Amino acid sequence: MSSKPAVSVIGLGEMGQALAGALLAAGHPTTVWNRSAEKGDALVARGAVRAGSVQEAVLAAPLVIACLLDHDTTYTVLEPAAEALRGRTLVNLANGTPDQARRAECWAEGLGAEYLDGGIMAIPSTVATPQAFVLYSGRERPFTAHRETLEALGGAVYLGADAGIASLYDLALLSAMDMMFHGFFHAVALATSHKEGSAGGVTELLVPWLSSMLQMLPSLAADVDADRESGAAPGFAQGLDVVLAGAHNMARAARDARVRADYFERSGADLEEQIAQGLTLFTAPEAVRRLRVNG
Amino acid sequence: MSSKPAVSVIGLGEMGQALAGALLAAGHPTTVWNRSAEKGDALVARGAVRAGSVQEAVLAAPLVIACLLDHDTTYTVLEPAAEALRGRTLVNLANGTPDQARRAECWAEGLGAEYLDGGIMAIPSTVATPQAFVLYSGRERPFTAHRETLEALGGAVYLGADAGIASLYDLALLSAMDMMFHGFFHAVALATSHKEGSAGGVTELLVPWLSSMLQMLPSLAADVDADRESGAAPGFAQGLDVVLAGAHNMARAARDARVRADYFERSGADLEEQIAQGLTLFTAPEAVRRLRVNG
Repeated sequence: MSSKPAVSVIGLGEMGQALAGALLAAGHPTTVWNRSAEKGDALVARGAVRAGSVQEAVLAAPLVIACLLDHDTTYTVLEPAAEALRGRTLVNLANGTPDQARRAECWAEGLGAEYLDGGIMAIPSTVATPQAFVLYSGRERPFTAHRETLEALGGAVYLGADAGIASLYDLALLSAMDMMFHGFFHAVALATSHKEGSAGGVTELLVPWLSSMLQMLPSLAADVDADRESGAAPGFAQGLDVVLAGAHNMARAARDARVRADYFERSGADLEEQIAQGLTLFTAPEAVRRLRVNG
Repeated sequence: MSSKPAVSVIGLGEMGQALAGALLAAGHPTTVWNRSAEKGDALVARGAVRAGSVQEAVLAAPLVIACLLDHDTTYTVLEPAAEALRGRTLVNLANGTPDQARRAECWAEGLGAEYLDGGIMAIPSTVATPQAFVLYSGRERPFTAHRETLEALGGAVYLGADAGIASLYDLALLSAMDMMFHGFFHAVALATSHKEGSAGGVTELLVPWLSSMLQMLPSLAADVDADRESGAAPGFAQGLDVVLAGAHNMARAARDARVRADYFERSGADLEEQIAQGLTLFTAPEAVRRLRVNG
C-alpha cells in the first residue's frame, strides 16, 4: 500500500486525465470521477479507482482536485457532494476570473471545506514535466499541508492569501501567451504572402528572435516596479518617433501583403496621440499606464 | 595594415555606431560618416577614419553600409554621392517595407551599384553577439562576395533574390515582437492592478512560460505549411468553445482590473463569428487564413 496521501480528481477532460495520471505516477492512491465515466478507463487501467458518484469521489480523499471547464460547471458538478466536502481541501483548477475564485472560496468555506484556487501553466502533454508549474492562492494552511502532493503536477507556486490572485496571474500569463501567438500567426501570414516565404522558414528565425527578446522583460519589469515604488526614471527608453515609424512600416507591410493591419493602425494612432500630448519617449511604465482604463 | 576588406558606414545613430564598432573590432578598415560629425568621435578614437563628405565615405570602400532612419533619409543622404556608388555594393539597413526595398534596388542598380537590403535582428547592445542576426535579400553575387565581412555584424541570413523579402521577414519578426511586448505590458498591467502583485513577480513566471510556449511554434508552422502544400489536416486543434471561454475570461479579468480589454473583446467576437459559421476547431492554418484580407 502506498504511503502517499490519497487524492481525488473530478473532471477527466484531457487536462484532468493528465493530472490524475501524474498523481498515479507519483504513487498517490487516486480516485477519479467524470460525468462520462469512460474518460476514466485508461486511468483505471493504470490503478486509479473509479468513483460511482461525485460524493463517493469526495469522500475518498482529504484532497479533492476539480478540473472542470469553468466555475458554473464546477458548482453544478460539486453541489450534490456539498456536504461531503466538510473537513476536506478543494483545489479548483477551472479557468475563471479572480472574482469567481473569491466567490468559490466563500462557497467552499461556507461548507466547512478549505479552498485553494489554482491555474495550471502547462498543456496536458507537459503536466509534471520540469517546465510545468501551477499557480495557487488562498489560505496558506491547506497549501502547506498539501504542497508535497501538489508538486506531483508541476512546480507549485503559492501567490498569496487572496484566493483571486492565482487566477489573475494565470490570466495575465495566458493573455500574454495569446498575444504572442497572435504575433506568430501575423508573422506567418506576412511571410507566406510571398511566393518564396514559408511558415517554417520564418518560424526558424522567429523562435530565437523572440527568445532573445524575452530576456529584456525582467529589466522592463524592474522599470515598472521602480516607477510605482519611487517614481524612478526608467532604464529603457526609445524615441516615440522611431517607435511610430516602426508601427507605420508594420501597418503598411501588412496592407501590402493583404494581411489585417488594424492592430498596427490602432497602435500608430495611439503613438500619434502620445506625441500630440507632448510625450517624446516610449518607456515600459508609460506603456503599462496607457493600458489602464482612466489610468 | 589590415588584410580585411575596407567598409564604410553611413549613419551613426546608436545602431550605426554599433555596426561600425563591430567592423572595427573584427579588424576591418572602417570609414564613417554622419550628418552630425561628433557621433563618430568614439569610433575615430578606436581607429575609424572620419570621411569629410558622404562622397568621400562611399569612395573609401567597395562595401558601403547605410544605416539611416528610413528610405527617404537614405536617398537624401546618398544622392550627393550617387555617382560614386558605381561599381560598389550598397547594403541598406534602413527599416522599410518590401516595396521600398525593391525601389531602392532599382535606384542603386540604375547607378551601376550592386544592392542588398537588410534587416538587423538585434538591438545596438547585442550587435555582433551570438544571438544577433541580419537578414539580407537581393542578388546573390554581392551577398556571396561580402558575406565574410557581413558576418562581423551577426549571423548573415540570405533570404533570396527578391530584394523585398528581407524586409518582409524583418517586419514579420518585428510585428511578432511588438505583439509579444504588448502581451507582456498587458500581463504587467493586470498583475499590478492587485495590491499584492508586482511587475517583477509576474515576469519571473512569464519568461519561462512564454519560453516553453515558443517551443510549440515550429509544429504549428508545420501545420500551416502542410495545409498550403497538400491541404493536410493540422496536428494541433483545440475546441473553439474552449478558446472562446478563455477569451471571455481574459476580457472579463481585464475589465475587472480596469485594464483595456478591447483586444480580447474583438478576439471573442471573431471566435463567435467562426462558431456561427459552423467551425468547431481552432487550428493554426485557420488562424492564419483569418488574418488575410479577403482570404
